[in-house]
Amino acid sequence: MATPLSSETIEVDARSSERPSLRLALSRRYAEPASPDPDLQGRPDALSVVTSLLAHRSVRRFTSEPLPEGAVELLVASAQSASSSSNLQLWSVIDVRDPARRAALYEVAGRQAHILECPSLLVWVADLNRPTALAEQQGTGHAGLDYLEMFLMASIDTALAAQNAVVAAEALGFGVVYIGALRNDPERVAEVLGLPQRAYAVFGLCVGWPHAEAEGAVKPRLPRSVVLHRDEYQSVAAQRSVLEEYDERMSAFYTQQRMPVPAGGWSRHSSERIATVAALRGRDRLRLALNALGFALR
Amino acid sequence: MATPLSSETIEVDARSSERPSLRLALSRRYAEPASPDPDLQGRPDALSVVTSLLAHRSVRRFTSEPLPEGAVELLVASAQSASSSSNLQLWSVIDVRDPARRAALYEVAGRQAHILECPSLLVWVADLNRPTALAEQQGTGHAGLDYLEMFLMASIDTALAAQNAVVAAEALGFGVVYIGALRNDPERVAEVLGLPQRAYAVFGLCVGWPHAEAEGAVKPRLPRSVVLHRDEYQSVAAQRSVLEEYDERMSAFYTQQRMPVPAGGWSRHSSERIATVAALRGRDRLRLALNALGFALR
Repeated sequence: MATPLSSETIEVDARSSERPSLRLALSRRYAEPASPDPDLQGRPDALSVVTSLLAHRSVRRFTSEPLPEGAVELLVASAQSASSSSNLQLWSVIDVRDPARRAALYEVAGRQAHILECPSLLVWVADLNRPTALAEQQGTGHAGLDYLEMFLMASIDTALAAQNAVVAAEALGFGVVYIGALRNDPERVAEVLGLPQRAYAVFGLCVGWPHAEAEGAVKPRLPRSVVLHRDEYQSVAAQRSVLEEYDERMSAFYTQQRMPVPAGGWSRHSSERIATVAALRGRDRLRLALNALGFALR
Repeated sequence: MATPLSSETIEVDARSSERPSLRLALSRRYAEPASPDPDLQGRPDALSVVTSLLAHRSVRRFTSEPLPEGAVELLVASAQSASSSSNLQLWSVIDVRDPARRAALYEVAGRQAHILECPSLLVWVADLNRPTALAEQQGTGHAGLDYLEMFLMASIDTALAAQNAVVAAEALGFGVVYIGALRNDPERVAEVLGLPQRAYAVFGLCVGWPHAEAEGAVKPRLPRSVVLHRDEYQSVAAQRSVLEEYDERMSAFYTQQRMPVPAGGWSRHSSERIATVAALRGRDRLRLALNALGFALR
């Protein structure tokens, strides 16, 4: 799926042997041999989509080549095609090109170089300002917007939309990475992007052509048995040996990728990430920040 | 993308004239003529993915045929391939087959028949229980989990994952619909599914083969100019005439689809949806319900 969109595109036959097999894509995702392939051989479209999804990895280094004309618009059309609760469409997206604004967001997000360097930086905004304005035009009132439910609904709508954009982007050969660190300082982000009351940046998304030296490995995920439950939730205690195997698998992955992760495995450093208020790196303020931006969160 | 996965599958040539054009898919999504096609003619994989995304519509009526062996597992592998903040993987999914549990969820969600009838009902759970248990094993503490940020991060992770499953499902020819109404009574859902503390059902997802009489139209979305901003947020006031056109387009769509929507256009009934606390249909309790489920939401 990494064929470039440019005019140098080499046409790929949909049934060529270069298409990654589903079994290979699955075994990369779980870093263990895959269970038997569902048979998608007669379904080239389905196989394209699923292998593209399975092959996701975050890209944090891009070439300087801009996105082709119309690409951002196509990502946004894909995003708008995601489900939206009651069709309320509670989100906006801001294509940030201005270097001064990029620099300000780079500071908020802990100086990640790709925020400056990516060809396209899309900031996804949970937008309860639009329904506020519409309700004021209609004279209906908007008391519902003051509740946690509507904040959550807008945040979910935004995430579904952004993920569709990600799927489209990767199918087009782009690499992406989400920037959750915009939530380090929501008020500053709102100021930089001129957000009105009742709108906040859920996350950013860097999009561009992956640099040849961009990290390339698919990150192994938890064994499916840990996240997929049948009829009722199964306790973590019952999954201890499976989780220990995953810890070992991830430690091997970090070593192989030369990632600077402290010793102790996934369970250990995941626990450290949520162990203390300090580990939230300022995001313990999120509720106060959202209150200041007009979300009452009742 | 609606070719069935069964053995009767007719192989579709990736370049056949039956593939919907991008221009057609875009004009259906916006219910207006599309801007010029980005050229994806040499990119059959990319075209497959983007046209599948653009063609999304919710399906609420299914055949009784079960999903093929391995299909749910493939949807979950797709879901696990979505980005996850710090790779914490803060979600679980419950495949609900037990009729008694289905019936209970049907009651919570306002008696939507497809909750009983769909071949697969997946309930997506924001899961801060797993990191709680891991932190207890590791002896690190887990004070960070008591903050709104971690509740939001888990909810976003869950939504990104579920949307990947939706994309895979639709590529495989299934229809889906999200069930946000599980948030009408989070405590009851937690009881039905045996959820531990610090886990809540974000939404359900019905998956199955679309019934021949399932609603088939793509719902028109807001014009792209309303949701896509450049460098800074543009106020709704500046978009008034565009929004009025959308109201007319949606009124025509409701009439054409014989949907029982009250007069007044999208702006009007969207406003009514958030006008009062009563319009939240009990979800004004969400914060209290989440507190009871162990989310302190500080």
